[in-house]
Amino acid sequence: MHGEIITIGNELVSGRTQDLNSWYAAARLTASGLKVVRVTSVGDDKKRTADALKKALASSRFVIVTGGLGSTTDDMTCEIAANALDRPLCLDDRMLEKIEQYVRVRKIEMTEPLKKMALMPEGARMINPKGATCGFSLVERGVNFYFLPGVPDQTRYLIDTFVLPDILALYETLPVMRQRIIKLYGLSEPRIAEIFRSLQEQIGEVALGFYPHFPENHITISLRGRDEPTISKTLDQVEKIICEMVGSYVFTHDSREMEEVVGEMLLKSGKTLSVAESCTGGLIGNRLTDVAGSSQYFQGGVVSYSNEAKVDLLRVSPKTIEAHGAVSAETAREMAMGVRACMHTDLGLAVTGIAGPDGGCRDKPVGTVHVGLCCEKETFTGKYRFWGKRKQVKQNSAMMALDWVRRYLNGDPFIPGI
Amino acid sequence: MHGEIITIGNELVSGRTQDLNSWYAAARLTASGLKVVRVTSVGDDKKRTADALKKALASSRFVIVTGGLGSTTDDMTCEIAANALDRPLCLDDRMLEKIEQYVRVRKIEMTEPLKKMALMPEGARMINPKGATCGFSLVERGVNFYFLPGVPDQTRYLIDTFVLPDILALYETLPVMRQRIIKLYGLSEPRIAEIFRSLQEQIGEVALGFYPHFPENHITISLRGRDEPTISKTLDQVEKIICEMVGSYVFTHDSREMEEVVGEMLLKSGKTLSVAESCTGGLIGNRLTDVAGSSQYFQGGVVSYSNEAKVDLLRVSPKTIEAHGAVSAETAREMAMGVRACMHTDLGLAVTGIAGPDGGCRDKPVGTVHVGLCCEKETFTGKYRFWGKRKQVKQNSAMMALDWVRRYLNGDPFIPGI
Repeated sequence: MHGEIITIGNELVSGRTQDLNSWYAAARLTASGLKVVRVTSVGDDKKRTADALKKALASSRFVIVTGGLGSTTDDMTCEIAANALDRPLCLDDRMLEKIEQYVRVRKIEMTEPLKKMALMPEGARMINPKGATCGFSLVERGVNFYFLPGVPDQTRYLIDTFVLPDILALYETLPVMRQRIIKLYGLSEPRIAEIFRSLQEQIGEVALGFYPHFPENHITISLRGRDEPTISKTLDQVEKIICEMVGSYVFTHDSREMEEVVGEMLLKSGKTLSVAESCTGGLIGNRLTDVAGSSQYFQGGVVSYSNEAKVDLLRVSPKTIEAHGAVSAETAREMAMGVRACMHTDLGLAVTGIAGPDGGCRDKPVGTVHVGLCCEKETFTGKYRFWGKRKQVKQNSAMMALDWVRRYLNGDPFIPGI
Repeated sequence: MHGEIITIGNELVSGRTQDLNSWYAAARLTASGLKVVRVTSVGDDKKRTADALKKALASSRFVIVTGGLGSTTDDMTCEIAANALDRPLCLDDRMLEKIEQYVRVRKIEMTEPLKKMALMPEGARMINPKGATCGFSLVERGVNFYFLPGVPDQTRYLIDTFVLPDILALYETLPVMRQRIIKLYGLSEPRIAEIFRSLQEQIGEVALGFYPHFPENHITISLRGRDEPTISKTLDQVEKIICEMVGSYVFTHDSREMEEVVGEMLLKSGKTLSVAESCTGGLIGNRLTDVAGSSQYFQGGVVSYSNEAKVDLLRVSPKTIEAHGAVSAETAREMAMGVRACMHTDLGLAVTGIAGPDGGCRDKPVGTVHVGLCCEKETFTGKYRFWGKRKQVKQNSAMMALDWVRRYLNGDPFIPGI
């Protein structure tokens, strides 16, 4: 029931490119109840690729291999696979036909490297022969190998459409594996570690995982077994215990992002939102509009990076900025009120702060951020101090601002500031 | 001169978390002229971790291992390392002292799992013993092993400060390895593949890499040898050939992002910029403000997600929206003019489009995007059709808009639209 993933490419082992393929494949396989025991990345290197294939042949039931399929000279997975699995390379007629068609349509010349793409290990079966993107599979000594191209979008498509169903068909009665994700924001890691320790004694066979995911923290609970209802019931209980411990710090019990959670709450409450962003520079708006359909509740906003923009567009009083500074509770308040008024929304959300690395001083060090939320009856403000680099301060500021909307709509208190 | 990376954690092989540690380590090692030949991720699994360590011992000169150091029950790297490398576990006095101090400061109780953290394989040397974060190293049969925690920030710090200098000290005369990155935007992949093919005959020993990095394309040229000046001269020549072939599609010859390139150009020209964003929702502003010091040229902008915002804040004429629609060249033009006027900047940049998945129609399918740029004397507009999902359309739109500023300031023609 377990398998592994091998990704091939100099760009991976040299750190030029992130290995998104193995990440995606691992997540999809795990979600289907399968277990990935190893991920190996090697360069465009015959010996080490062959090594990895042989090792997988000896210890796994299925193997997904990505990369090295193509017409450039560093693409030699077919040859290596044929050698490692002791099979001759044969000209595949269907593949050759596809290449000839490609050449015809584009009116380009047929070249040797292109022709080489039609050479596949004997017994290989094409994956997605009718599509523009294809790979091949082969079975060696009971181990299913899937060879896919390295381009992430294509790989994802082939995994979901062909590879995963094929692997799942190998198992008649797959044990049930259920995993839940609980996402938290605003609790410190030592605090979570404490909770974690006290949990471990109460939860029996349930596997607990803790994953910092800046600026969020994710907890997973997972259980494997034969009987779905029992598993679900057990996980329900553990989830309940955790939620009692961490309360409103949990912003979702599934894979949703904060902006999706906030979006659904706005939609449900029928309220509209606008944002006035200073140090976040547009990040909050960008996150909100990553959600399809966000135009139903998000009206837009003002990125008031300069003081003039705060005064001209948001009607922040120049006196307020003069007396308290652009990074102050008073300015955050007026920004929130101003954006709510000029965008005619139910809620106006504002952030002003010092993202760094410059611009800090003793009274207002880098990372000082004020959040403001103007609602129908009242305007709230809060002051926070975030740590880290510029982008991290921005990320935390945007997250905290979105969390304010979530907590306001939920009737929960805001995370205490400083 | 080659080594490998092993990362440990169920969260990695289950796809819960991206393996940022191996990515970073590989990039840093490569940039220092070292070669990474394999990256292996395994779960919290004694057998497979031991396998990976033994395999590395047999074939590499240095090995970086991350994860599995800590006080939770799934952290057992020390024990596995001791077994795999045939060494007893010993209580390390310095480590115990650190833990005792940690316990004292936090006023928590000393527990067995915490105490366990002080057990290290015999002969292990602490890395960063004075710091809050530490790991350990040991040398077995001439192979240098470095064991680090799994938290990315800590790992990065330890790699840069301790591990990399230690590895580099192993090599008296390290051959020189130079890699250049050339980043392109706006050329289709088949077009790049063609260029690539014609290049391969002209460049001798220079290794060429092509990496799609949505929505950009990156080309790397690298060469290894003994003599820095010769290598640099050769790479200069190849770089020149490439730039002659792809011209203005190259936006940088180094690791900078588009927003950094545009930012430096604005700074140099003394011009200021404001943005009016519709479908990008704040992404352009977010990218521009990721750059430290961007307040010198970026004044801010308006996220005019709704039509009212376009009319009220940007003074787009309601008649224009009525006659041509919110997604039109005319609206993009008035948005660019409007934001330039209300933010008092030299340049006003605007984007309006349909990010999808809904909102498209036959005349204006999903992915239709208009860019507008209002300059001192003239306002330009262009229409594009981008493919992919919502976030991809947003990314391409933001990238194209930034590219317009770059090309305008360079005196280059904009990428042709439709």
